[in-house]
Amino acid sequence: MAQNGNGDNDFDESPDHEHKLGRKGSSTKVKEDEVSVERMFQHMLVPSWRNQLTVRAFVVSFVLSILFSFIVMKLNLTTGIIPSLNVSAGLLGFFFVKTWTKFLEKSGMLRQPFTRQENTVIQTCVVASSGIAFSGGFGSYLFGMSEEIANQSTDTSDFKNPKLGWIIGFLFVVSFLGLFSVVPLRKIMVIDFKLTYPSGTATAHLINSFHTPLGAKLAKKQVKTLGKFFSLSFLWGFFQWFYTATDQCGFQAFPSLGLKAYDNKFYFDFSAIYVGVGMICPYIINISVLLGGIISWGIMWPLIKTKEGQWYEKGLGEGNLHGIQGYRVFIAIALILGDGLYNFVKVLTHTLWGLYHQIREKQRENVLPVADQDSPTNPQLSYDDQRRTQLFLKDQIPTWFAIGGYVAVAAISTATLPHIFHQLKWYYIIVIYLIAPTLAFCNAYGCGLTDWSLASTYGKLAIFTIGAWAGASHGGVLAGLAACGVMMNIVSTASDLMQDFKTGYLTLASPRAMFVSQIIGTTMGCVVSPCVFWIFYKAFPDLGRSTSEYPAPYAIIYRNMAILGVQGFGSLPKNCLLLCYIFFGSAVTINLIKDFLGKRGRFVPLPMAMAIPFYIGPYFAIDMCVGSLILYVWERINKEKADAFAPAVASGLICGDGIWTLPASILALAGVKPPICMKFLSRAANQRVDTLLGN
Amino acid sequence: MAQNGNGDNDFDESPDHEHKLGRKGSSTKVKEDEVSVERMFQHMLVPSWRNQLTVRAFVVSFVLSILFSFIVMKLNLTTGIIPSLNVSAGLLGFFFVKTWTKFLEKSGMLRQPFTRQENTVIQTCVVASSGIAFSGGFGSYLFGMSEEIANQSTDTSDFKNPKLGWIIGFLFVVSFLGLFSVVPLRKIMVIDFKLTYPSGTATAHLINSFHTPLGAKLAKKQVKTLGKFFSLSFLWGFFQWFYTATDQCGFQAFPSLGLKAYDNKFYFDFSAIYVGVGMICPYIINISVLLGGIISWGIMWPLIKTKEGQWYEKGLGEGNLHGIQGYRVFIAIALILGDGLYNFVKVLTHTLWGLYHQIREKQRENVLPVADQDSPTNPQLSYDDQRRTQLFLKDQIPTWFAIGGYVAVAAISTATLPHIFHQLKWYYIIVIYLIAPTLAFCNAYGCGLTDWSLASTYGKLAIFTIGAWAGASHGGVLAGLAACGVMMNIVSTASDLMQDFKTGYLTLASPRAMFVSQIIGTTMGCVVSPCVFWIFYKAFPDLGRSTSEYPAPYAIIYRNMAILGVQGFGSLPKNCLLLCYIFFGSAVTINLIKDFLGKRGRFVPLPMAMAIPFYIGPYFAIDMCVGSLILYVWERINKEKADAFAPAVASGLICGDGIWTLPASILALAGVKPPICMKFLSRAANQRVDTLLGN
Repeated sequence: MAQNGNGDNDFDESPDHEHKLGRKGSSTKVKEDEVSVERMFQHMLVPSWRNQLTVRAFVVSFVLSILFSFIVMKLNLTTGIIPSLNVSAGLLGFFFVKTWTKFLEKSGMLRQPFTRQENTVIQTCVVASSGIAFSGGFGSYLFGMSEEIANQSTDTSDFKNPKLGWIIGFLFVVSFLGLFSVVPLRKIMVIDFKLTYPSGTATAHLINSFHTPLGAKLAKKQVKTLGKFFSLSFLWGFFQWFYTATDQCGFQAFPSLGLKAYDNKFYFDFSAIYVGVGMICPYIINISVLLGGIISWGIMWPLIKTKEGQWYEKGLGEGNLHGIQGYRVFIAIALILGDGLYNFVKVLTHTLWGLYHQIREKQRENVLPVADQDSPTNPQLSYDDQRRTQLFLKDQIPTWFAIGGYVAVAAISTATLPHIFHQLKWYYIIVIYLIAPTLAFCNAYGCGLTDWSLASTYGKLAIFTIGAWAGASHGGVLAGLAACGVMMNIVSTASDLMQDFKTGYLTLASPRAMFVSQIIGTTMGCVVSPCVFWIFYKAFPDLGRSTSEYPAPYAIIYRNMAILGVQGFGSLPKNCLLLCYIFFGSAVTINLIKDFLGKRGRFVPLPMAMAIPFYIGPYFAIDMCVGSLILYVWERINKEKADAFAPAVASGLICGDGIWTLPASILALAGVKPPICMKFLSRAANQRVDTLLGN
Repeated sequence: MAQNGNGDNDFDESPDHEHKLGRKGSSTKVKEDEVSVERMFQHMLVPSWRNQLTVRAFVVSFVLSILFSFIVMKLNLTTGIIPSLNVSAGLLGFFFVKTWTKFLEKSGMLRQPFTRQENTVIQTCVVASSGIAFSGGFGSYLFGMSEEIANQSTDTSDFKNPKLGWIIGFLFVVSFLGLFSVVPLRKIMVIDFKLTYPSGTATAHLINSFHTPLGAKLAKKQVKTLGKFFSLSFLWGFFQWFYTATDQCGFQAFPSLGLKAYDNKFYFDFSAIYVGVGMICPYIINISVLLGGIISWGIMWPLIKTKEGQWYEKGLGEGNLHGIQGYRVFIAIALILGDGLYNFVKVLTHTLWGLYHQIREKQRENVLPVADQDSPTNPQLSYDDQRRTQLFLKDQIPTWFAIGGYVAVAAISTATLPHIFHQLKWYYIIVIYLIAPTLAFCNAYGCGLTDWSLASTYGKLAIFTIGAWAGASHGGVLAGLAACGVMMNIVSTASDLMQDFKTGYLTLASPRAMFVSQIIGTTMGCVVSPCVFWIFYKAFPDLGRSTSEYPAPYAIIYRNMAILGVQGFGSLPKNCLLLCYIFFGSAVTINLIKDFLGKRGRFVPLPMAMAIPFYIGPYFAIDMCVGSLILYVWERINKEKADAFAPAVASGLICGDGIWTLPASILALAGVKPPICMKFLSRAANQRVDTLLGN
């Protein structure tokens, strides 16, 4: 299973990131890999593809997909930084079905044992579904179309407020294209090219390990740890709620580093979810985020603020894009674009170079990439590879079905989309759909090589090209954002599905079962994600405002990118463009240095990770660094235990806090407001307040 | 070493309490006791009594006595509940000298190894010194004389504000009498009567264990744990400080159970010191305190408040003794007196009965209690007893010296005291000094049997008798309080010293060394304690007010007892006297039931423990119950580890928070105020505040 759907937001385009998580999850499995895994499983029957698709698997998937949609949505709307949730999904899926089957076994009603193939099906389905919560753009392009965000941007003329109906419709017509576009290529990618797909491989190891006796025991302990921290994190969220009468109250407003630091957004906001995220993300990401925060909110913004009246008009306030906010947003965009462009070029070069070599090698060997020749009897293949290839090739998905599906969905989509976004003309859509399969292939291939999904970069490409094509007068901003959505959905699901095929290959799950599971998961996601977003949207009316608990930072960034693409740089405040150039250049330079240094380059910070605190402030970076610190100390005390249980602890913290947003939103919807405000006042303000309150 | 000086405040008159701690501290030593302890030590030379009194021992004692004076003072002034600090003093003393000697050993400069006798000397000195912080009455009779407390009581006519000069003078003239009064009796008590002195015995076990190789290893680990929690607790205190701009700010005002509960003083106030105290105190004490809080603040006070206007005048406010506060104070007094009286009668009966049996037995055996006959060659004595008795009898303190000392100090005291308190006539003092040695003997004997020091009960006796004798017109209130001080100091130090002799007996420390150490410790205490109190008094100007961080609950209770003794019950609000009778009766009844039930009586709550929350509210009871809960869970998870390390954790929490008050008071004295107020407002109040602050 590949979590790229969740993972490949702007921020997650780091190869380290998913790599590391994969390694963590499978660290206990490395040795099993050296001996033959499949020999351990050889006496276990592999169910037919139909039997891999059980009702219980989809029930569990549905429950988990709601859980993960909430988590991903919360992350989307707070900072947009989303860690890979593979391990949590793996552990929880295993836990649910295992508990269920154990219960049935005891009551003697178990008809079908729980197999790793079924486990893979659950993973695939959950990831496909919760992936939509990311690629649906609820924290980026889609919410960037709304009136709330439009009012904060420099172009307020054109907006489209979210409505449950059109969002679900939109997602249905664009989310399935990615699936069809890469299905025919699965054999080439997985068997012929032997691409690694690190995340998919790691997940497969995890699943394989769960189904060995020793692995099951460890998994049980991990699940217990996860459960403990889940409860703690949930209860902590619940406890915090009572003291949060307004946004400026409660632990989220705790000036733990002093009031001065708080004013510059340096504080620990006690959110368990980001402590968990910090534990999962590699150290360098956490440090990059913190560094970004220090550079921006610690140095640059205070300095720029002293130029108020010279560089920009006085008294514009914090939220105005012509004032200080402009520097925040556009410099962040410059960093993101610089990093994105560099990596786009790099991965594309990598992809094309890899492709060229693969094909040349094949030609030299005079071995045409036909199924029969890579047959299981090929003597140079290990037992594992033979058995995996055999089962991978057993259940075929006909190519005509894939192409037919793509054309059919594309046709429906072309007909429907202009009705949803009248700014998006049918010919733009056709152009996108003609180019998309190529880009989807590129992304799937690149991801297989580097574990690096460039979905959001392709999305930005669409923003700029389609936006510029449509032009300002014809609603270029909305056209750009909509095109971004179409592109991202195709490209993102393509790499996800391919990761899943790799996982399936390694767990002997049938590709046909994977495909069906992905279809079902996507369908779930197209309904669940908009509903979850809708709950947030209705429950928190200040969603998207920069002072809100849910600032949705990427929404304003995406919208402003679209405006930039359509209108150019005219409206930026003084010196902002210069600073943007500097940071764009720095992003490219830092990446160059990073690659040039090779292995030592891992100590060079990631520009992409530095961008988000530029806009929303470094408070979540402090949370994440606390997570890092905990992990670091734990690793120093007991490396083995930390490796085995840190992902479970982190998942528990993330899931608990994430799922607390469900009751929190329900309370908000029901109009139940927290009774107490925990307020932090300077001594002077406190005196005035005490006088007011009369004590 | 006996920590009774600290331990025997009103609250600590529970036999369970010191028992339990003793057992805890020595739990790892029980087995060693079964084999001969002294055989393990037989090859170690016992230094001469002069060599047991090293300079380094007194340097360490001085440092520790400052530390413990701060802790005891903080406890005195917050709730008056003081746990036995034996274990902390033992661990810290061992740690300091061991570190020092190790350092010297490495540099080759060690002239004298660290012996358990020296360790006993340190313990004795620290306890003697920090004992003054309790028996000096800074939280009770002495502070009860001040204007601040007088203004809160029903008799505001007569007061004497604390001043460093007279307090030190007063302590010097009364604190040494107890020492001289029981010195001649040490052989009878320790060798002839073989009294157990549970606390002293436990401490001796602890010290003995430290000086065996296995024990030293455990002690080292315990010290490390103590250090860790010391730092945590200290840093936590430091962190809290920043958010406490006024009394109603910060974690101490955190309505963790809701605003409604907070108004009735039900909340967790995040004070590490009481969590630690809760971990040391036995479960039944914590539960009693909580129960007392629930009965009073949960049920009675809210009910009585509904009678405002009928039972007492309207609009008197929270702090007026003619209003609701009267019920709080006088019902607490009734409970304390009921419990005190019951236990006084019980322990006295016990004492006299025990004495009668001892003497009869001796007579029947026709063995006169002369040293030679109990000589080490007595065949019925074990090796341990022989060796201990031999060393205990080696260094004598001449009886003429003791009697001479007593008479001399008493003469000086009689001459001086009327100059300090003009209300305390010289003939009152002579009467006290004539009776005191008998009471001192009773207390030392009773303490040896039951580990139960009745010092504060004897003090109350003095309040009522001398107060009534002097009468209202001649400043009976102050005379009573002063007499209480004189009596308490004598009686309390007497039982302390005897506990120390027992410890010395079991660790082969010379009685002469013990005596000198106690003299030096008392001298230190007479200077250090008033200074520490002075810092608190100057740093926190609202000391003693019921809304303050330092309400010093016993001060007002003692003063009102004195007023009661002098003036009778005239000024009590309606039905208060009836309630007092009921609670006085209940206290006696509960004790009767407790004793009647025998072993099962341990589940019956202690009336004494229930009294304090009646006055100051149940918030510290919640802290203590949190401590209990932590201990309970820990014991369930790992009994062995909890037994070995819980006292260290508790001591760390207590010491860290206690010593934080030192920098906190210095900051307060220097006029440095915390910068932030963490305030808790209801949603309605918050709206008004937000309007005021304009956001």
